[in-house]
Amino acid sequence: MTNRSFDFYFDFSSPYSYIAAEQIDALADKHGWRANWKPILLGVIFKATGGIPLTMAHPWKSKYSLADFERSARFGGVPFKLPAKFPQASQSAARAVLWLQQTQPSKAVPFALEVFRTLFVRDGDITDLNTLAAIAKGLDIDADAMMTAIQDGAIKQALIGNNDEAAALEVFGAPTFVLDGERFWGADRMPQLEHRLMGR
Amino acid sequence: MTNRSFDFYFDFSSPYSYIAAEQIDALADKHGWRANWKPILLGVIFKATGGIPLTMAHPWKSKYSLADFERSARFGGVPFKLPAKFPQASQSAARAVLWLQQTQPSKAVPFALEVFRTLFVRDGDITDLNTLAAIAKGLDIDADAMMTAIQDGAIKQALIGNNDEAAALEVFGAPTFVLDGERFWGADRMPQLEHRLMGR
Repeated sequence: MTNRSFDFYFDFSSPYSYIAAEQIDALADKHGWRANWKPILLGVIFKATGGIPLTMAHPWKSKYSLADFERSARFGGVPFKLPAKFPQASQSAARAVLWLQQTQPSKAVPFALEVFRTLFVRDGDITDLNTLAAIAKGLDIDADAMMTAIQDGAIKQALIGNNDEAAALEVFGAPTFVLDGERFWGADRMPQLEHRLMGR
Repeated sequence: MTNRSFDFYFDFSSPYSYIAAEQIDALADKHGWRANWKPILLGVIFKATGGIPLTMAHPWKSKYSLADFERSARFGGVPFKLPAKFPQASQSAARAVLWLQQTQPSKAVPFALEVFRTLFVRDGDITDLNTLAAIAKGLDIDADAMMTAIQDGAIKQALIGNNDEAAALEVFGAPTFVLDGERFWGADRMPQLEHRLMGR
């Protein structure tokens, strides 16, 4: 495994985070880098910045965003279907990923990708713990242990820690990639990130 | 000249509009399309939508934007230097372009590009009518006639008309490309626009 890495801040409720998640490891691998997956809660970030979800923007922009989610997914070659319930609170899924990173790191990204696909391809409800348990079982992860971990104070604190770290780096949206303090905001900045990974 | 065209809404005070302007005609040409250059005033749009300039966003975002202007220009292969005075009111330059489109259409894009370069490469002041007159002279355009046209009621109305048209299309930022009612917002959506031009 390479020592060179960058951080990938994402929120499970963000369609552009999903689009990035489906592509970022292949992009990193290609150039000998590693992506550190860092779940955060955009809602916490927005409290600091006054930001709002795209779905709550002025109608000209929110309508555009719904169309752009689909077009950007198609452009990125990933399936996409806007969930009936959107956006969805993502803290349980985020905590599950943090627990996996601490206990079974090789399962963290596969689990995260299944959470994203459950929400943005299969119209699932990731706020329902049964949904997360089913994803865990499908990946041979102990679902009961995961359900316990989601309520664990140390895991809750780890998520707060991710958010604090993102705030210290002035991350104001998701996805954001951070390399040596340089921010790349948006799935649409992956081409510029790639240039940076290539040393350009 | 091809009959197939799309609209390119831009504001001279927008760095991403400049980055797009330097590339859009080549992109259109390559696929047998034509870009209709449509100057607008983002300030008028923002009054309708509650939008704000990136420079007035939360500091985490505004600082990012300044860095992203430079990085995106570099990525697009165009020179860029943030002007000392920024943003700058763009209505005089916009009216000059509208007058050229009505009277000497072949000079409109060369003039518009020189306005953008004056602002974003040579740190000029495009609110100064002397600056616009000098650009006109450099392109063998009658500067006195241009200065008169900038104050002309019909030209002022043409700019209002562009803004009304943009609002009717729910354009909320610049640059925005509009093809058959479909909006592509941002210089970073040119790859998706290109896909569309290729019929994908």
